[in-house]
Amino acid sequence: MKQDYLNIALLEAKKSAQAGEIPVGAVLVSATGEIIAKSGNQCEATHDPTAHAEVLVIREAAKKLGSVRLNECDLYVTLEPCAMCAAAISFARIKRLYFGAYDPKGGGVDHGGQFFNQPTCHHAPEVYGGMDEKNCGDLLKEFFIQRR
Amino acid sequence: MKQDYLNIALLEAKKSAQAGEIPVGAVLVSATGEIIAKSGNQCEATHDPTAHAEVLVIREAAKKLGSVRLNECDLYVTLEPCAMCAAAISFARIKRLYFGAYDPKGGGVDHGGQFFNQPTCHHAPEVYGGMDEKNCGDLLKEFFIQRR
Repeated sequence: MKQDYLNIALLEAKKSAQAGEIPVGAVLVSATGEIIAKSGNQCEATHDPTAHAEVLVIREAAKKLGSVRLNECDLYVTLEPCAMCAAAISFARIKRLYFGAYDPKGGGVDHGGQFFNQPTCHHAPEVYGGMDEKNCGDLLKEFFIQRR
Repeated sequence: MKQDYLNIALLEAKKSAQAGEIPVGAVLVSATGEIIAKSGNQCEATHDPTAHAEVLVIREAAKKLGSVRLNECDLYVTLEPCAMCAAAISFARIKRLYFGAYDPKGGGVDHGGQFFNQPTCHHAPEVYGGMDEKNCGDLLKEFFIQRR
């Protein structure tokens, strides 16, 4: 079930790759298991440096539910969120975070400032990292090899 | 001149307070000194947990200029940006960051994960912090006292 949601996030990531975007995808799931929002990265298409997949699904879900807080929701994302997305996840009060591959170069959960471990972080989700290092990581590696 | 831009950000923050939003305001300025975008915090009005003043002006400016990169632009904000906004500032390649008051509880520049000092940060602006601790800090303090 968890892998199913991550696979849907992976499909979103692949769509982003086809559109020339860095291939990261995210799915936001309600307490009852319903998918509230799914998206890939859209920075280039929208000319928005904050349009990471995680931010886009949080924005869409918060709008749909009419609340800045998504207390009982879980987020599935193909890559370890960056500092921006980690903080957005915290502000939205996401319950659980599942991610596919670790990101030593840009991650903000297990790398860099490790936002959820800071005293300035006032809500941290449960975190389940590295769920599918092979598929999620390879998609990114292939994308950057092709762009070189 | 710098204080003039910060005063405009402060006016945006005051508008946010009047609308029941946490009073933080931001102004984005081009290399020639033109104000490209200004905004206060709009999280409640838009049901968007990422709608901090900094993120809103970056989004608006990037859209106007048709680029995710705002290389020669400077950002003025009344409060030390959080981790989310610090990362957004980095992604947008903002040149200089000026902020009014430090934020020990939620800041991400001089507090918490100090994003710009992390190896996962690939662009850091020049930072000029604590420009107007009294006016910018007092506005926030008054707001939270009134809400208690």
